[in-house]
Amino acid sequence: MSKRLIPLFNRVLVQKIVAPSKTTAGILLPEKSSKLNSGKVVAVGPGLHGKDGKLLPVAVKEGDTVLLPEYGGTEVKLDNKEYFLYRDDDILGTLHD
Amino acid sequence: MSKRLIPLFNRVLVQKIVAPSKTTAGILLPEKSSKLNSGKVVAVGPGLHGKDGKLLPVAVKEGDTVLLPEYGGTEVKLDNKEYFLYRDDDILGTLHD
Amino acid sequence: MSKRLIPLFNRVLVQKIVAPSKTTAGILLPEKSSKLNSGKVVAVGPGLHGKDGKLLPVAVKEGDTVLLPEYGGTEVKLDNKEYFLYRDDDILGTLHD
Amino acid sequence: MSKRLIPLFNRVLVQKIVAPSKTTAGILLPEKSSKLNSGKVVAVGPGLHGKDGKLLPVAVKEGDTVLLPEYGGTEVKLDNKEYFLYRDDDILGTLHD
Amino acid sequence: MSKRLIPLFNRVLVQKIVAPSKTTAGILLPEKSSKLNSGKVVAVGPGLHGKDGKLLPVAVKEGDTVLLPEYGGTEVKLDNKEYFLYRDDDILGTLHD
Amino acid sequence: MSKRLIPLFNRVLVQKIVAPSKTTAGILLPEKSSKLNSGKVVAVGPGLHGKDGKLLPVAVKEGDTVLLPEYGGTEVKLDNKEYFLYRDDDILGTLHD
Amino acid sequence: MSKRLIPLFNRVLVQKIVAPSKTTAGILLPEKSSKLNSGKVVAVGPGLHGKDGKLLPVAVKEGDTVLLPEYGGTEVKLDNKEYFLYRDDDILGTLHD
Repeated sequence: MSKRLIPLFNRVLVQKIVAPSKTTAGILLPEKSSKLNSGKVVAVGPGLHGKDGKLLPVAVKEGDTVLLPEYGGTEVKLDNKEYFLYRDDDILGTLHD
Repeated sequence: MSKRLIPLFNRVLVQKIVAPSKTTAGILLPEKSSKLNSGKVVAVGPGLHGKDGKLLPVAVKEGDTVLLPEYGGTEVKLDNKEYFLYRDDDILGTLHD
Repeated sequence: MSKRLIPLFNRVLVQKIVAPSKTTAGILLPEKSSKLNSGKVVAVGPGLHGKDGKLLPVAVKEGDTVLLPEYGGTEVKLDNKEYFLYRDDDILGTLHD
Repeated sequence: MSKRLIPLFNRVLVQKIVAPSKTTAGILLPEKSSKLNSGKVVAVGPGLHGKDGKLLPVAVKEGDTVLLPEYGGTEVKLDNKEYFLYRDDDILGTLHD
Repeated sequence: MSKRLIPLFNRVLVQKIVAPSKTTAGILLPEKSSKLNSGKVVAVGPGLHGKDGKLLPVAVKEGDTVLLPEYGGTEVKLDNKEYFLYRDDDILGTLHD
Repeated sequence: MSKRLIPLFNRVLVQKIVAPSKTTAGILLPEKSSKLNSGKVVAVGPGLHGKDGKLLPVAVKEGDTVLLPEYGGTEVKLDNKEYFLYRDDDILGTLHD
Repeated sequence: MSKRLIPLFNRVLVQKIVAPSKTTAGILLPEKSSKLNSGKVVAVGPGLHGKDGKLLPVAVKEGDTVLLPEYGGTEVKLDNKEYFLYRDDDILGTLHD
């Protein structure tokens, strides 16, 4: 039976986007060029209580494409798929086409 | 006489779930594959007072299945059973089938 | 003349419970098995002022049996009896039969 | 398809201004003289919630020319162009002709 | 002319109580037994402003007998008498007969 | 075209005052005597938001002569002139004749 | 022209009191006995904004005699006289005859 994880507090569950090493036309992409450390938001926590006691919701939402920091992130394996958990204030930004 | 522990502040008492090394059909599971560091919440503390003085209840409740961090947790032996105490903001998330 | 200590702020004075090394029937208990690091609360301080300025009373009360952390605690000798002072947020929980 | 990054929280996306090594009249500029570590603001995040819970918008806006600190900044490559992400309180000031 | 010190903020001026090495009947007391690190409060500061801006008076008052921590305290010589200054939240508790 | 810097947050732009090594009458001043580490305030930032969310303006203003700490300060070259950026709470005081 | 320093924030300008090494009757005082690390307050800053945003004035005033900590203090030379700058919460107390 598959497992679903609902993050706690301001954590965000992300599935990394592995950039294709070849273009659709099959041309090999240089190693470094297209590799943005990015991922798809799979689930978000409820957020954190701010200093005034009010709940600050997480800054991203399910389905967002996000730019991830070079380091950090907790690896989580669910049904043999690899995910990463980040605190929302470690995520750099949202990516848009 | 058995002992019951009520955690203080935002602590959570967890009994770890030890994943079966064989499937119900008896097939040996590869060592790493199914081992989520997870546990069942046995008892929770009242929570912590936020910056505005109001009590913030603990983010999980008795009976929840939770995903635990790789490190941390204070081992507690009660009636020869092994439990672990975590602060609620160290717990990564709740697991759902 | 015996001395009485009233702790300050959120400190808690505890007398450790030394678990019997033999059962009532005289059977030697294995070293590690029953040794919960626990104690009886003898006196508590008034508490600490929270961030909103209001006084947060200490989380345990006189007579409670408490589970103590492995480390910490300030040793205090009063009338040749040994006590330990803890800050209330270092105490793990209350023990109940 | 080109990618656009919207920074999170109080982050600012900057494209560095590389000072010309020659004057318009072609005279070679001494290495150190004109090199201000400056850049153009390309995108800003929504800001951070202050201690009173209200949102504090980022201190600079798109199009500003800013003086950057000597160190820090996270390198981000988008469509083969090089950008840098800073927290707004690390940016030293805005430059004006 | 003798000097009087009024401590600032939440500081407390204490004169240490040196326990008698002999009982009134002249019996030598074992070195460690009766030596509580205690003292008499000689003067207290006005207190500290809490997070809500209100003044939190010092937790002890002149004349109190207090239990002192093993370490810390700033030595102050006034008219050849030795005193110690402590912050009130370093003082462990008040002693009562 | 000359550049003008408007500092951000509670930063202050200062031009150091280099004390004359000779008196007006031409007498060589001993090295250490008159050398106050001081400067003229050239520009100030808007200030910082206090804990209550209100903007706390910078504690000095353009034209003030200020006493600078021995260390710290970020060097900034604008139109070949040397300035230093300080956070206002690092500046020791204002100097008056 | 003499210089006057007005400290910033909660800083206090102090001129140290050098205790006489002889009594008025000319008797040499033992080195350590009378040497309180004290000084006269020459000028004070406006104070600091507390957590509630209100200005907390400095805890001492011009003319006070203060007991200084053993370490700390920033040396400032004004018109060849030696002064020291302290933050008010580093000053131990006020001395009174």
